[in-house]
Amino acid sequence: MPYSTKGAGRNPRLLLRKVGNMTESARLEDILTQLDAGLDAALDRLMDFLRIPSISTDPAHSGDVRRAAGWLAAQLTGLGFQAQVHDTPGHPMVTARSAPGGARPLLFYGHYDVQPVDPLELWSRPPFDPAIEETNAGRVIRGRGASDDKGQLMTFIEAFRAWKAVHGSLPTDLILLFEGEEESGSPSLRPFLREHAGDLRASLAMICDTGLYADGRPAITTQLRGLVGQEVVVRGADRDLHSGSFGGLAANPIMVLAQALAALKDQDGRVTLPGFHDGVEDLPADLARDWQALNFDAAGFLSRVGLSRPVGEKGRTPLEMVWNRPTAEINGIAGGYAGDGFKTVLPAEARAKVSFRLTGTQNPEAVRVAFQDHVRRFVPADCTVEFHDHGASPASVMDISDPAFGQAKRALGQEWGRDAAFIGAGGSIPIAGDFKEILGMDSLLVGFGRDDDRIHSPNEKYDVESFAKGARSWARILTALRE
Amino acid sequence: MPYSTKGAGRNPRLLLRKVGNMTESARLEDILTQLDAGLDAALDRLMDFLRIPSISTDPAHSGDVRRAAGWLAAQLTGLGFQAQVHDTPGHPMVTARSAPGGARPLLFYGHYDVQPVDPLELWSRPPFDPAIEETNAGRVIRGRGASDDKGQLMTFIEAFRAWKAVHGSLPTDLILLFEGEEESGSPSLRPFLREHAGDLRASLAMICDTGLYADGRPAITTQLRGLVGQEVVVRGADRDLHSGSFGGLAANPIMVLAQALAALKDQDGRVTLPGFHDGVEDLPADLARDWQALNFDAAGFLSRVGLSRPVGEKGRTPLEMVWNRPTAEINGIAGGYAGDGFKTVLPAEARAKVSFRLTGTQNPEAVRVAFQDHVRRFVPADCTVEFHDHGASPASVMDISDPAFGQAKRALGQEWGRDAAFIGAGGSIPIAGDFKEILGMDSLLVGFGRDDDRIHSPNEKYDVESFAKGARSWARILTALRE
Repeated sequence: MPYSTKGAGRNPRLLLRKVGNMTESARLEDILTQLDAGLDAALDRLMDFLRIPSISTDPAHSGDVRRAAGWLAAQLTGLGFQAQVHDTPGHPMVTARSAPGGARPLLFYGHYDVQPVDPLELWSRPPFDPAIEETNAGRVIRGRGASDDKGQLMTFIEAFRAWKAVHGSLPTDLILLFEGEEESGSPSLRPFLREHAGDLRASLAMICDTGLYADGRPAITTQLRGLVGQEVVVRGADRDLHSGSFGGLAANPIMVLAQALAALKDQDGRVTLPGFHDGVEDLPADLARDWQALNFDAAGFLSRVGLSRPVGEKGRTPLEMVWNRPTAEINGIAGGYAGDGFKTVLPAEARAKVSFRLTGTQNPEAVRVAFQDHVRRFVPADCTVEFHDHGASPASVMDISDPAFGQAKRALGQEWGRDAAFIGAGGSIPIAGDFKEILGMDSLLVGFGRDDDRIHSPNEKYDVESFAKGARSWARILTALRE
Repeated sequence: MPYSTKGAGRNPRLLLRKVGNMTESARLEDILTQLDAGLDAALDRLMDFLRIPSISTDPAHSGDVRRAAGWLAAQLTGLGFQAQVHDTPGHPMVTARSAPGGARPLLFYGHYDVQPVDPLELWSRPPFDPAIEETNAGRVIRGRGASDDKGQLMTFIEAFRAWKAVHGSLPTDLILLFEGEEESGSPSLRPFLREHAGDLRASLAMICDTGLYADGRPAITTQLRGLVGQEVVVRGADRDLHSGSFGGLAANPIMVLAQALAALKDQDGRVTLPGFHDGVEDLPADLARDWQALNFDAAGFLSRVGLSRPVGEKGRTPLEMVWNRPTAEINGIAGGYAGDGFKTVLPAEARAKVSFRLTGTQNPEAVRVAFQDHVRRFVPADCTVEFHDHGASPASVMDISDPAFGQAKRALGQEWGRDAAFIGAGGSIPIAGDFKEILGMDSLLVGFGRDDDRIHSPNEKYDVESFAKGARSWARILTALRE
């Protein structure tokens, strides 16, 4: 529908914006119609993409990873993007951008590499011979990468394609970054971000590598816990001792370590390190209401892994425990003889890996220092302690007062027919932290995966509904962010 | 020197004993002279014995083990013992006895099997081509088994040989038991003791498989700590969890285990289990004085293994800590990911091996139950705990009011020119417990090994002084016990 300035009021700026909105809104309907009409063709393209076995962790597939990069770049070039395949010391990065001109550059991130497929015999069909299958829960796309992350990544591209079909051109100021090493530790990512910071910096990053909330409600992840990893090694005697000859006299490094680790939490499950909670904040009232409204089924969540009761910090809701409270977990421990049978050794050393999940503005380095000081207080004069650092990243807390979050939330709600939720994540999504640290931008983490997608496992699938409504969601969000 | 009854008093019993003593005493001098004169021949016999590679743990040497048994039986038969080689499901037992007739049967125990010799390249000479070597610290017998236990075992036999040369016959009521499986776990020993209990039961067992006290002072080990071994497995979720998604909400079995184990000891290093100390007794004043007089060099003892300070129970001397105080030690622990790098797993299970050293009359079964009850108090509803039992033996505390202990102590003091000490041992010597449990007799644990004998290691040696004075010691003890 062509637009008219007839009947406009006296303020020409206001008039233009209003008319613009009406136009965008009408065009959005056209884009959504276009997406629906083109679904089968879009699925065919996704199938082509899924047929490329781009397993990044397996050197035998490095040619396939490159082929997937080339396939993507060709798709993007075909849509009018200026696309490039960049060599890295590992797998290629694909970047693309539309014409400049908008006030608000947006970066879109996804990854085109996939997990290995072992054990192959557990797959109901060859993992790289994807198909649409009818199931009791609806149509699904079955194949490796369907959900993680090729199917999700293609929701961006199909939204851009429909946009172009309706508008005649791409939205301005889109920056695309597709990675080929996400499933193998992203060794090239941070150097690449630093090197190309000038080209990649945007006002906000869109990351499509997450899922719907548990019950299928659309969600935006607005906070992620940070992480500090520490390995600690306590050493006593210069050899394993006989516990008969030395037991009760010589220091036992396992006991020293057990006592230090046990004291990390008090009886209420709260971390005891001095200063640990500096920067930890209770949830703002509006987010607390949102989370409450999620009716998180903690028992159901736990029952899927054979547990039933939240055992975390006293006085906290289960969602707070995993999303908004810092914690300490022992990830591994070893010392002495733990094989079959019994050896009465008093071991020379014991080691543990401990990680802290951080929230708010907790300082990872301060937490590391507090932990080391804490452990040292338990180490007797005869023992030594050694620490190895394994990563330190602060929590990511997005600034949801940025109107983009509210706009995206409303857009998602319109598409899915129910309110979208601002949610948290207990783990970190490193790319969000990298974007913040290196490019200085927040991320809008939106995805359409489901808990039963079997990502990283045999028989991975992605619901056709997730794919179709995912692309429609991005069309709505793109439109909303340009209001 | 012939004896005379002239000048004896009126009490004929007293007279006889006095005269008897004089005779025994004179004969003892003859026996000692005989031993000194026969030292070279005795060493030649020991060399023959050492040349037999009786490695019990290596099936390739089972013929050699049998050959060593036959060699021993032939020696004993030659001395007038009734010797037998008994087949067992494992290696043979050699038994022998002299003529009955004494009021006080004595059992002598030693073992004729030896440890493996790897790594062979660290030996200064072939381990089964023994030799007498001159060293800065005197003459030594170099070869596998020189100290553990063929050299020590032969101190018995040479004492019997000299006795017979002087007296014309063996002492009455000697029972000999030589084992060929001591270095491979003694699987046949307990069944054999049970089957032959009637033939083996004596008033006291002599065990020659220990050493001189640290500074070369002769010693009798009169108490050994008992042992309870427990493996504990704590299980949480039915799989390893992602510590981001579940950390702070789900039970962490390593933390559960660490908290249970850490609480086993209080800040003073004292075991906290309720009822644990039932049966633990402070050292009698005379033993305490003896131990004090040992001037135990705890710092020196610890420095040999890279430690310096006793860290055990507060208010206890170092010797008490290892000999007369019960303790809890964690012998091994494992859970989660402890390999290279870092995995943020919240593990499904954690396990530990814990042993308790017992003293006095502590009840091993009660300790086991108290430990299990203690651990269960730390296990949240969502976790399970499983225990595996690994052995349970009470402490062995010899009845040193039995005059034999004082007699042997004086005899050793006379031979070595310095007071013999009653000492303890922090570990158990299973055979002593077996003799007590199955045959109802205490053991006189006396040996002449030294800390630098390198038993179980390359270049094992036994001092010629230990061998010579060892045989003399047994001659003195035999004489003393017949007073």
